[in-house]
Amino acid sequence: MESSHGNCFNVFDANSNICVTSGFGPRRIREESVMLRTVNPSTGALPFQSLMVADLGDVNVNLYNLQDSCRRIQEAYEKIVAAGCIPLTLGGDHTITYPILQAMAKKHGPVGLLHVDAHTDTADKALGEKLYHGTPFRRCVEEGLLDCKRVVQIGIRGSSMTLDPYRYNRSQGFRVVLAEDCWMKSLVPLMGEVRQQMGGKPIYISFDIDALDPAYAPGTGTPEIAGLTPSQALEIIRGCQGLNVVGCDLVEVSPPYDLSGNTALLAANLLFEMLCALPKVTTV
Amino acid sequence: MESSHGNCFNVFDANSNICVTSGFGPRRIREESVMLRTVNPSTGALPFQSLMVADLGDVNVNLYNLQDSCRRIQEAYEKIVAAGCIPLTLGGDHTITYPILQAMAKKHGPVGLLHVDAHTDTADKALGEKLYHGTPFRRCVEEGLLDCKRVVQIGIRGSSMTLDPYRYNRSQGFRVVLAEDCWMKSLVPLMGEVRQQMGGKPIYISFDIDALDPAYAPGTGTPEIAGLTPSQALEIIRGCQGLNVVGCDLVEVSPPYDLSGNTALLAANLLFEMLCALPKVTTV
Amino acid sequence: MESSHGNCFNVFDANSNICVTSGFGPRRIREESVMLRTVNPSTGALPFQSLMVADLGDVNVNLYNLQDSCRRIQEAYEKIVAAGCIPLTLGGDHTITYPILQAMAKKHGPVGLLHVDAHTDTADKALGEKLYHGTPFRRCVEEGLLDCKRVVQIGIRGSSMTLDPYRYNRSQGFRVVLAEDCWMKSLVPLMGEVRQQMGGKPIYISFDIDALDPAYAPGTGTPEIAGLTPSQALEIIRGCQGLNVVGCDLVEVSPPYDLSGNTALLAANLLFEMLCALPKVTTV
Amino acid sequence: MESSHGNCFNVFDANSNICVTSGFGPRRIREESVMLRTVNPSTGALPFQSLMVADLGDVNVNLYNLQDSCRRIQEAYEKIVAAGCIPLTLGGDHTITYPILQAMAKKHGPVGLLHVDAHTDTADKALGEKLYHGTPFRRCVEEGLLDCKRVVQIGIRGSSMTLDPYRYNRSQGFRVVLAEDCWMKSLVPLMGEVRQQMGGKPIYISFDIDALDPAYAPGTGTPEIAGLTPSQALEIIRGCQGLNVVGCDLVEVSPPYDLSGNTALLAANLLFEMLCALPKVTTV
Amino acid sequence: MESSHGNCFNVFDANSNICVTSGFGPRRIREESVMLRTVNPSTGALPFQSLMVADLGDVNVNLYNLQDSCRRIQEAYEKIVAAGCIPLTLGGDHTITYPILQAMAKKHGPVGLLHVDAHTDTADKALGEKLYHGTPFRRCVEEGLLDCKRVVQIGIRGSSMTLDPYRYNRSQGFRVVLAEDCWMKSLVPLMGEVRQQMGGKPIYISFDIDALDPAYAPGTGTPEIAGLTPSQALEIIRGCQGLNVVGCDLVEVSPPYDLSGNTALLAANLLFEMLCALPKVTTV
Amino acid sequence: MESSHGNCFNVFDANSNICVTSGFGPRRIREESVMLRTVNPSTGALPFQSLMVADLGDVNVNLYNLQDSCRRIQEAYEKIVAAGCIPLTLGGDHTITYPILQAMAKKHGPVGLLHVDAHTDTADKALGEKLYHGTPFRRCVEEGLLDCKRVVQIGIRGSSMTLDPYRYNRSQGFRVVLAEDCWMKSLVPLMGEVRQQMGGKPIYISFDIDALDPAYAPGTGTPEIAGLTPSQALEIIRGCQGLNVVGCDLVEVSPPYDLSGNTALLAANLLFEMLCALPKVTTV
Repeated sequence: MESSHGNCFNVFDANSNICVTSGFGPRRIREESVMLRTVNPSTGALPFQSLMVADLGDVNVNLYNLQDSCRRIQEAYEKIVAAGCIPLTLGGDHTITYPILQAMAKKHGPVGLLHVDAHTDTADKALGEKLYHGTPFRRCVEEGLLDCKRVVQIGIRGSSMTLDPYRYNRSQGFRVVLAEDCWMKSLVPLMGEVRQQMGGKPIYISFDIDALDPAYAPGTGTPEIAGLTPSQALEIIRGCQGLNVVGCDLVEVSPPYDLSGNTALLAANLLFEMLCALPKVTTV
Repeated sequence: MESSHGNCFNVFDANSNICVTSGFGPRRIREESVMLRTVNPSTGALPFQSLMVADLGDVNVNLYNLQDSCRRIQEAYEKIVAAGCIPLTLGGDHTITYPILQAMAKKHGPVGLLHVDAHTDTADKALGEKLYHGTPFRRCVEEGLLDCKRVVQIGIRGSSMTLDPYRYNRSQGFRVVLAEDCWMKSLVPLMGEVRQQMGGKPIYISFDIDALDPAYAPGTGTPEIAGLTPSQALEIIRGCQGLNVVGCDLVEVSPPYDLSGNTALLAANLLFEMLCALPKVTTV
Repeated sequence: MESSHGNCFNVFDANSNICVTSGFGPRRIREESVMLRTVNPSTGALPFQSLMVADLGDVNVNLYNLQDSCRRIQEAYEKIVAAGCIPLTLGGDHTITYPILQAMAKKHGPVGLLHVDAHTDTADKALGEKLYHGTPFRRCVEEGLLDCKRVVQIGIRGSSMTLDPYRYNRSQGFRVVLAEDCWMKSLVPLMGEVRQQMGGKPIYISFDIDALDPAYAPGTGTPEIAGLTPSQALEIIRGCQGLNVVGCDLVEVSPPYDLSGNTALLAANLLFEMLCALPKVTTV
Repeated sequence: MESSHGNCFNVFDANSNICVTSGFGPRRIREESVMLRTVNPSTGALPFQSLMVADLGDVNVNLYNLQDSCRRIQEAYEKIVAAGCIPLTLGGDHTITYPILQAMAKKHGPVGLLHVDAHTDTADKALGEKLYHGTPFRRCVEEGLLDCKRVVQIGIRGSSMTLDPYRYNRSQGFRVVLAEDCWMKSLVPLMGEVRQQMGGKPIYISFDIDALDPAYAPGTGTPEIAGLTPSQALEIIRGCQGLNVVGCDLVEVSPPYDLSGNTALLAANLLFEMLCALPKVTTV
Repeated sequence: MESSHGNCFNVFDANSNICVTSGFGPRRIREESVMLRTVNPSTGALPFQSLMVADLGDVNVNLYNLQDSCRRIQEAYEKIVAAGCIPLTLGGDHTITYPILQAMAKKHGPVGLLHVDAHTDTADKALGEKLYHGTPFRRCVEEGLLDCKRVVQIGIRGSSMTLDPYRYNRSQGFRVVLAEDCWMKSLVPLMGEVRQQMGGKPIYISFDIDALDPAYAPGTGTPEIAGLTPSQALEIIRGCQGLNVVGCDLVEVSPPYDLSGNTALLAANLLFEMLCALPKVTTV
Repeated sequence: MESSHGNCFNVFDANSNICVTSGFGPRRIREESVMLRTVNPSTGALPFQSLMVADLGDVNVNLYNLQDSCRRIQEAYEKIVAAGCIPLTLGGDHTITYPILQAMAKKHGPVGLLHVDAHTDTADKALGEKLYHGTPFRRCVEEGLLDCKRVVQIGIRGSSMTLDPYRYNRSQGFRVVLAEDCWMKSLVPLMGEVRQQMGGKPIYISFDIDALDPAYAPGTGTPEIAGLTPSQALEIIRGCQGLNVVGCDLVEVSPPYDLSGNTALLAANLLFEMLCALPKVTTV
């Protein structure tokens, strides 16, 4: 994991899956990743010639205690980040992004966030608990982990329990791009704006697979209809090329809900594209 | 079911499923409906604050006799409509729309029809029978239940057994919008035309889930390739806001053909959107 | 199979499935083909009134010896072609196109090729073998079976093992249309260009079902994300109307990977559309 | 179907599947029957060397009218039986046994019955209808089609709606063998008693696949736990060798409920064993 | 829930599913329970004529905090038991039996236990946690909730991590009946011994569905091969008739692992049989 | 792989899956093997304390050439055996046992064989080929690799194409134990006889998963009804304790046919039991 002369890449399985349907996600994504080859002809990226890439294995989370799991994840990522790695994490449920961002902000200060998801994940609590997969970004805001003027959420949709479900987000300065504003459109122009907004400062990418339409990604726990397409997902990730990406995750893949295995295949491809979009990746 | 001061809403399971693969549809749609919340951020609709909404349970149909089932459905809906309800029905196969429209027309006179489907369902008979899920709208025309100049069919496609499969429909005055005329297009402009055509008179919405592409709605008995997308389905239903909708149904959901459960989830969402588009629903 | 007065149509099951996941494809496609009727309202084609159409059954391939299978397919197709048939083949893996094109070129000389696929299938060898489903078109080029200036590949995508994965193809004169150049676009303009390029000379259509996005066609062995849609597939095949099509195949359908059966339904529809696009098919 | 010199065998698909989940049963059973070979090493039977065996195809039933379907089945079987055939029928739901037994009794007079099933199927009516898959043997008794002293029901189990669910059957003289009396036991001794009871007079075998435990036959509409095993099913059918079997059916196979296809494989094997147990089948 | 004149029956869904694959179990078991009728012909039991039976709904557990969930379950069951109910609980994972037995013992003192399971569930801790689905009976022993001389565990099997995996249990006085001692045997004699051992004092039945072979109950999280059969499960539960049963549970049903739904059907039947075996149930 | 002081154990994936449905078997078996722990409480075996156990990975077979694959397997196993390993192989189709036995016999001379299977696999050829998964033991006999007086085949069943399907086997001296002679019986007595027959000379165990009933092992390519149970499989393997086992394989696991994953779980358990039955394994 040590790296004196450059970035090292980390396919990491936090597997913090206490609320749990996503528990087997990382295993299946790794399996499907054997279908991937080393060159990205679309962007010309040669990630394995540019970076040291390693699979660091799983964080040994506590399946029966979510708070303890978060503590373990935070500690593990502090070491990873300190070693100069750019962690690319396979979830696991979305709770894991909170302790990961704690580690990120400890090193980089408040980071920008590209959050692709059907849900804003900024609820305050549920069942009296402040820590679960609906609240991570609220916690991050409260702890000052995010550079709120550089937070973009894409793919948001679905019915809600409150009159103005995006008020909190917008009041913090987040840009909320609804799925319905993406329908049948290329997202290349949007990503041009995002790149401008993000500038050269550190940015973290958190990609919830339920941002995609359930036809493409049925293997997830809280699907919402009328989501993004895989080509839009590729446009989003490829649109991050050139940004100062300091970490990425791909969460909420839940293989039991997808007998075809194609959600995991999709996830493996999106992770490969994230890898190709990292800083210092050379192109053909 | 009584309602002195306004509409009451009725999630009704006619379940007239004699030809049957759709028999478990309503049960699964109800299950998936727990994923839905009460506010529609896209249209601002607050249906549960505006209407009295109730699940009236299932019509007790006769699984072994289609004619008797139609009689039972007609009688049940006459009572529902007489009570001032706007019934929102979960099928069940498409046969049920015929006795429902008998009840509708008894109260409202001939109604306009927004029919979203892969098939026109205006065959004359099959196997010598005049009553099955391929003929309901032919029967409705014959009995004068429809205001034919205000009938629009959207999503029609597939191979046919006759040289001009839409001749009957067009000769009655129906507007037939083929799926191929919807490909890769927003249907917002089309719905503007539909609203003009429908005007302020009563209109019934009958939505066959096979209007959608099988990738989004595999759980149905007679899928046809190259259908509508969920975003188009939302554009259609949201485009009905402001119309004088007197009843709706969502039919042909057949869970055994969809192991993921996502067809039922999609159906539950479309029913919620229909609810949000009803007259007297207030918005934020 | 004899035909003195015109073309005879051949739904043929080569089933050369040595590397095998596609072994049950033809059986399921035939099953799903019962959903199809005889008239194509979109193009007006009346194939069964225009052609003699027959199901010639399966070529008796050798499951345990790929070279012997290729020999058997070549011999079978030489007879079919000699009898004046236009073979429409259900695969089976893509290897079968090589011996079929041997038979085609023996009769017609080098043929044009419309190749719809996620992969170029022009590798040189794998595991030391020159004959498998990744190499057929390389072998065809080497044997002069193709009129390389009239070869178009549509839908190509995915990561690769070499820096320039399309160099070989383009150096032979192939037109390579990437999937990303098709995203969210009608392919009607592209097919206008293809028709011009193909002219009136013989053309063969080879359609690998993995050209489509896995959401529409999960039942295949090497799915790639972000592929074509069914409406684009229909635009491609319908766009061949008027060309001098001398044979077609639809390969790589693998039912065990698709529990819904919809990949086979899609394949049956595409084969019907190919039939409708053949020369001498009259229209309404 | 003509047969001047002996029995002819009939794999017949009545497909009378109005209440319907079993609709695709015969198709899948036929598919799986390709796994079967011609000799039965366990009993030495050589059915294809002894009998003329043919697949007579499907009876063209009326999917939308159960009474008309029964009439069509009765007429078809009267012709089959008149031609000297021993029909071996693939269901379809259990309703079909009623019109088949009408045809049987017309030729042979009241017949003995070996009925293997989880349910007695002697209800009087449901939803006011006298004709459905829970009542066939009640109707047969009322019409005098059965030789009630030679009726044996094996595999019966499950909760009931009445205090003594077997009273009607036993009062008619039926022998009712409960599943719990078969648990963990060879049924060879039972079948010795059955052969004695049946004697040399005509006997019909009606085998409902739900007689077996759902672990072996999940593909059926009304599974009951703790049923028979495949080895017991073989003991029952092989135990009929030497009896004067005039017809057989295998009903209630419903492939959508069994993704593995093994229910249909089991059914195909049981039908093969029935064929091997027919009169005039020679053995090695 | 009040009951002045006798027992009331409680189909209760504790749903304490924090480690979670069993989360949808109760919903599906309830669904499948519609297949059950009111009389048990095998034992003559008439439960609904003998007891007041009600579905008390779900305990509102905290999905994100296992300790808080246990506290909520304990409190809810203390009220249920205080009201004179015999709770029959649908799990949920096996952790829930610990707080339920806390409530049981508070009312009845240490209870006897019939524990049917593949695993002993008497581990001390895992991942540092003392509370999860592998430890409930260790905790119960430590708190004196069990009358250890009247504890019987049936169906135990599988590889282990320690040299003598049953030492703890046997040293407490438990009777451990291995699955291999049940293979191909009726359990009626064993249950005679169990009845003697239990005597007339209070006994709780805890049935983990993984006691059964995965062929019968694939829908569970930690299947072990070579388990009990459904007929043995029925023999066990029916063998409890006459005992002083004060509560029952059926746990670890996890529908996502069983596409057929038959695990839930089996569970619904076992719960019905438990109901039939309760004290004060009259028989025909 | 070197081992100067004892046996080393080899979980080996030959994966020679040219006719192929079993291609993903080893991967899934390895996955399921994480459910297994290190001690076998039933036999007291402590394999990991007794032997050096290693996963040697996969033999790099040629998917497109069966003969070349056999050559590669033979060479790989000659090295493994020469190193003093006892290979325990995960298939792959049954063809692989032929080259493995070539390597075995080269070291040990003709070996005894315990062959558990639904099929005898002693056909002469198919489609003109002498090498496929129906012929391995014929080839072994012809090359003198087997000590034919010490060959036992258990679980054989199914219809056949010849009048006496076991004649060849018995004429070679094989003992053929039919599945029907195992029904509802403990196989402990049979294994006592087998141990006597095998004596102290080298013996190879080849276990085809289709020996088991499809209810327990649906994940295989050529299932046959009415097979062995898992408890019988355990009795067979545990009955080999004390024999001079020089190698084992477990073949024909085909995950795509088993959505539950339980076939692979069963296979992993059987492999663990084989490991526990090896010579030099100490017991508690």
